Amino acid sequence: MRITDLDTPAVLVDVDVMERNLRRLGDYCAEHSLRLRPHTKTHKIPELARRQIEHGAAGITVAKLGEAEVMADAGLPGILIVYPLFGAAKWRRLTALARRTDVTVACDSVEIASGISAQARQDGVTVGLLVEFDTGFGRCGLPIDEFSLPAARRIRELPGLEWRGVLVYPGHIMGTASEREVLLNRENETLSRLMELLKSEGIDCLIVSGGNTPAAFLSHRFVGVNEIRPGTYIFNDKNTVCAEAASWGDCAVTVLATVVSTSVYGKAIIDAGGKTFSGDSLLSGDRQGFGHVIGHPEILVEDLSEEHGHLRLGGSRLKVGDRVRVVPNHVCTCVNMHDRVYGVQREDVVAEWEVAGRGKVR
Amino acid sequence: MRITDLDTPAVLVDVDVMERNLRRLGDYCAEHSLRLRPHTKTHKIPELARRQIEHGAAGITVAKLGEAEVMADAGLPGILIVYPLFGAAKWRRLTALARRTDVTVACDSVEIASGISAQARQDGVTVGLLVEFDTGFGRCGLPIDEFSLPAARRIRELPGLEWRGVLVYPGHIMGTASEREVLLNRENETLSRLMELLKSEGIDCLIVSGGNTPAAFLSHRFVGVNEIRPGTYIFNDKNTVCAEAASWGDCAVTVLATVVSTSVYGKAIIDAGGKTFSGDSLLSGDRQGFGHVIGHPEILVEDLSEEHGHLRLGGSRLKVGDRVRVVPNHVCTCVNMHDRVYGVQREDVVAEWEVAGRGKVR
Repeated sequence: MRITDLDTPAVLVDVDVMERNLRRLGDYCAEHSLRLRPHTKTHKIPELARRQIEHGAAGITVAKLGEAEVMADAGLPGILIVYPLFGAAKWRRLTALARRTDVTVACDSVEIASGISAQARQDGVTVGLLVEFDTGFGRCGLPIDEFSLPAARRIRELPGLEWRGVLVYPGHIMGTASEREVLLNRENETLSRLMELLKSEGIDCLIVSGGNTPAAFLSHRFVGVNEIRPGTYIFNDKNTVCAEAASWGDCAVTVLATVVSTSVYGKAIIDAGGKTFSGDSLLSGDRQGFGHVIGHPEILVEDLSEEHGHLRLGGSRLKVGDRVRVVPNHVCTCVNMHDRVYGVQREDVVAEWEVAGRGKVR
Repeated sequence: MRITDLDTPAVLVDVDVMERNLRRLGDYCAEHSLRLRPHTKTHKIPELARRQIEHGAAGITVAKLGEAEVMADAGLPGILIVYPLFGAAKWRRLTALARRTDVTVACDSVEIASGISAQARQDGVTVGLLVEFDTGFGRCGLPIDEFSLPAARRIRELPGLEWRGVLVYPGHIMGTASEREVLLNRENETLSRLMELLKSEGIDCLIVSGGNTPAAFLSHRFVGVNEIRPGTYIFNDKNTVCAEAASWGDCAVTVLATVVSTSVYGKAIIDAGGKTFSGDSLLSGDRQGFGHVIGHPEILVEDLSEEHGHLRLGGSRLKVGDRVRVVPNHVCTCVNMHDRVYGVQREDVVAEWEVAGRGKVR
């Protein structure tokens, strides 16, 4: 089947570009002896997670317990759930999962660690545990100071849990390449303080987990970090390009769309809106628009209705029935809108993958 | 089952509030002899579309052909596809649909109308047709001037199509109640011009379709409009409330979420982010935040990560494990993130509905 045989809108994954992205980061991690545990929230497709393992990943990361179950069903190893799981229903599912595969969870509270511990003890299983610290993103994670150490110590001593180390999320290491350099220096002061605190308490860490896509190739310079879990790098997107961390040629995912109306002067409307791209704003560069139309730098995707993409043509001409391919702002939320995506090589459709982890919100 | 038995995050539909919303608009349309064809993109659930028919709707509206097929499978009548469908694959599916149920499509180009016409003639079926005109929203629709009349005339004469009239989308009639009054006056000048143009050409219109939720109860004052297709009114959302078109008590949908982290000072993190709410910004009021936490006006949902909702507590206290219910900014895109939602009455879970039209992107 050819791309021209697909109806629109459709999410296309350029397999050659994806393989090159996987190989590049795999090689980088091997060179620097960094363990790679890619975040599969970007694709939620077991087959692509397997490709990541084949390119050297030591395991995978997920955000939701339901995603972990999907990946375990498909035989993926070394699953890290980088999310604080709360409540009896989830703790029971977690221990059931731990019975059949190696699983590590991250959390930042004694409440959650205790709940997991009690369930693990009751069910006679062991769950790996990382404690999250906040290096400045301000989302989850204990503050990096001595007042957090009693909590870390208590969690470390809970039965049913296997202490594996600490986790940070450097989501604030973004902006342009030069901005990231400044932020990295500040981050390393924070990480050094964390390493000192842990050492002073005699808290050993098999794993110090960090990493995101914009700073992926700086990972060897983060103090103490020995494992990374970037997600977007497999595909890249407009956010990554505008953050100077990839080129358009490194973007593996495009939305194939058709022009359905040109009645409004200066505009063309495509059959892909917020329910195809997700409505996520651009978080880097000039923060303008909702995607990049391949081969048409003059076109601005100026707005998204639910099912309409508004192209401001900027002098180019498109007619009803023309097709375009658009790199989304944020590929993780774009793929998450779809039940299936298509693998392509040049003009051929070579695969169709179910986004098996989509909709596993719990 | 009680709400407390549900795991989180979960989308709850308060059935009593929904029924009141349905009755109110149904009564209003009956009083003003307006045909109601609600846009089911808001819920994509056949059972709720049936409730709309029971409350007086003459048919339903959908955005995608795949949604139309789901609704037809469930026996819903009078389907309007308010989207310009392009391409042989869709035209074949459309005529297959027209063979088993009454279907009307909207478009604004001779290209698309001709394609549908040719397929309908080949397959020996008739498809209802509305031509869209642009009253100022600037998305789809022919300009309202004499140069558009030849296209309208050509479309009207195509075989295989049954001319049913015209369609407008007053998506720009928004803002506060007083702002909408001003916009309505301007809109009526535009609509009067359209009615005059059509009359001068002898183009009769069985249907003049308009209507959105913010202006739903002004519909009887739109010149010429005899049918409306609001969507959001069944549930309402923060956008509707901030546009002074509903109260919080009129919001039928809330996201039930659990606090999973309180480690960062002044914040609480809930287990519902952009992949639960959708990342849609607030389009009315102060345009701040990503939802309204019921019972906590002091809390700002200041940011959404993919799976984390960032609550700025504003002096209130929440602890890990606490549950909150949050009215989303935009309920149509929120429900669209989910495979199923729960109907509730007071504290009881009384229904579980599959969002059967979700993911039907083509």
